[in-house]
Amino acid sequence: MKYKILLVSVLFCFSLAVDAQFQRGPVIISPEILSDNAVTFKINAPEATAVNVVGNWMENPFAGAGMTKDSDGIWSFTTEPLTPDFYQYSFQVNGVTAIDPSNVKVCRDGSRFTNYFVLPGDQSNLYKVKDVPHGTVSKVWYDSPTLGMKRRMYVYTPAGYEGSTEKFPVLYLLHGMGGDEDAWSSVGAAENIMDNIIAKGLAKPIIVVMPNGNYNQSAAQNVLPANTNFMANYDENAGKFEESLVKDIIPFIDSNYRTYTDSKNRAIAGLSMGGGQATYAGLTNIDKFDWIGSFSGAFVIWPNVRPAPGVNDLNMDAVENIVFPGLDSGVNSKIKLMYLAIGTDDPLIDPQRKFKDWLDDNNIQFENIETPGYAHVWSLWRMNLVEFGSQLFK
Amino acid sequence: MKYKILLVSVLFCFSLAVDAQFQRGPVIISPEILSDNAVTFKINAPEATAVNVVGNWMENPFAGAGMTKDSDGIWSFTTEPLTPDFYQYSFQVNGVTAIDPSNVKVCRDGSRFTNYFVLPGDQSNLYKVKDVPHGTVSKVWYDSPTLGMKRRMYVYTPAGYEGSTEKFPVLYLLHGMGGDEDAWSSVGAAENIMDNIIAKGLAKPIIVVMPNGNYNQSAAQNVLPANTNFMANYDENAGKFEESLVKDIIPFIDSNYRTYTDSKNRAIAGLSMGGGQATYAGLTNIDKFDWIGSFSGAFVIWPNVRPAPGVNDLNMDAVENIVFPGLDSGVNSKIKLMYLAIGTDDPLIDPQRKFKDWLDDNNIQFENIETPGYAHVWSLWRMNLVEFGSQLFK
Repeated sequence: MKYKILLVSVLFCFSLAVDAQFQRGPVIISPEILSDNAVTFKINAPEATAVNVVGNWMENPFAGAGMTKDSDGIWSFTTEPLTPDFYQYSFQVNGVTAIDPSNVKVCRDGSRFTNYFVLPGDQSNLYKVKDVPHGTVSKVWYDSPTLGMKRRMYVYTPAGYEGSTEKFPVLYLLHGMGGDEDAWSSVGAAENIMDNIIAKGLAKPIIVVMPNGNYNQSAAQNVLPANTNFMANYDENAGKFEESLVKDIIPFIDSNYRTYTDSKNRAIAGLSMGGGQATYAGLTNIDKFDWIGSFSGAFVIWPNVRPAPGVNDLNMDAVENIVFPGLDSGVNSKIKLMYLAIGTDDPLIDPQRKFKDWLDDNNIQFENIETPGYAHVWSLWRMNLVEFGSQLFK
Repeated sequence: MKYKILLVSVLFCFSLAVDAQFQRGPVIISPEILSDNAVTFKINAPEATAVNVVGNWMENPFAGAGMTKDSDGIWSFTTEPLTPDFYQYSFQVNGVTAIDPSNVKVCRDGSRFTNYFVLPGDQSNLYKVKDVPHGTVSKVWYDSPTLGMKRRMYVYTPAGYEGSTEKFPVLYLLHGMGGDEDAWSSVGAAENIMDNIIAKGLAKPIIVVMPNGNYNQSAAQNVLPANTNFMANYDENAGKFEESLVKDIIPFIDSNYRTYTDSKNRAIAGLSMGGGQATYAGLTNIDKFDWIGSFSGAFVIWPNVRPAPGVNDLNMDAVENIVFPGLDSGVNSKIKLMYLAIGTDDPLIDPQRKFKDWLDDNNIQFENIETPGYAHVWSLWRMNLVEFGSQLFK
């Protein structure tokens, strides 16, 4: 056998599937944060005839902003100065969504993949991977007899969990509609937030369990053998996931992780649909949770409360007599914190306030957070997690 | 306060960042596997003037195949019948890479995100999430004094690990150049393969540890605070990762997981660069590993073996005297399996055969696998993992 010397660079060791972008065109930096916190986006697309950037700092994120092509075929756009935050964006190339090939930071937001970047600031730095001790995030499958399927959840154990014999309190953290067990980790930056607020001494080291809150789904859409319509017949099945959480998930966690199993060491919170689920599960299982958090909670997902299918309103008779029968100020001595947060621009604010008025009328205590200028957005939910997480188990 | 009834559907509960595609245009099924195993791809792109599909079944995956636009602006392309496998593809819309908006199955391949689909078959079904007991995949950070940084790895624990007191053997499974700790899980389908071959009784339940094999990187590019050039000064630092694996990773795993800690219960394998690392770490730590696997191994990454920088050849004097001094047929009674696999179309086959000839000359036993018609591709590495994994610890 002859041994010919192949003049092949180490690049040849790469998979054939390596990015074609890697092998051609100029090096582009995108996004680039300028000194005034404006941000420039660039993409090399000489054959495109219209390129937009679409980002969640825009008033209308579906319209996007037109980019400008230079003579080399590189399109660019610079924003106004932005406030520090975690931002998502994509390009639209001749009308089709494209990931920024210069930015490997991509998050999954339901059925969509978008780029993201963190514009640094005191708050937004909590969303980044910092040089602090890191917890572990595990994708764990468990059996749910209540829902009749194997299901997947994410479990965050704090730095120091491994190698210790200590027990920890547990927060059950729920996603919103369109999301799944991946959402808090991917778009919500939950593990970075927990790592950072624990490292700063703002929060206690805790376990965070992030289940899939869609009653008819075993795991995220990108994992399932086939997609399912996670919204099918939601109203008729309201409360089913919450039942499975109490009957299937909590016993699994308490028997497989080193947890404190009393209610004062167990919290439940969620955003949007998950805020509705957290409030429902919490207030109907007073013996199980002393800490309840709702971030822009969609209370209209509670069983039997909609005046008509799809209507975004609460029938308060149903809330009082069917959803929370017997709930009264007696819970004040039991619940350590009921944190009910929402942005003032959120279309869900009216039913939210209706429920809060009912709590007031019944002398049931809660922490009322209304954040001016925020709609139904992740920017607010990350802040809520920092604020709620910093109060837990104290 | 007035409570106006908002006629807002539950869709309003979605994040504002929900996919714009969701809200417009026809429902498109893509990819669609036809009865003869041809596959049709479709994308709604009325404003595009040229759309290609680029897939790893193509002879030249950088050229792609031109798609055809219908009068509604939907582009489509149908392949020839394909053999069952896990396939990656993207669209190129006016020259820019775009993810298929109809397919939520996306994998990360180094710096690139591509769609994928599994064309069903006896072998490729092992790559899918099936209705079998699932192991847990954890993203775990550990301290590496050897490399001077905190580093991240993925750890697969088999179904049944939780809730038992049993100990398990461990496979250390390494990625290739351009990859990181996410590669085997994302493109390699490693946890699905392990779940399925364990469930079928082909493999024993084992722990699989997937570290980041880039000596100068703490975690995957999409997690790091900043990207690093993972190839910088590779030759000068050859062997450093392998040193950290033995000094930092194995002790961490053995103290934090229920493992058997003897060498007959410890295996190491990898693909491409990782195959080189596995062979180097294995053969220089005979007391630690009884099972060694190389999938299209790049032996040219061993320290001091290149005749000149970047040259894809082995200096066999260096192999014999510097890399593996004293290695002889005495190891045959110790090593249970040295599995050296490569495709016959792989540009790395010549140095591979050169090393195998040297092993033969020195009467050192190994399993010689040359798969006809395969180049340097994941399609082969998944098959190698099935084959190697099914022999381990028996």
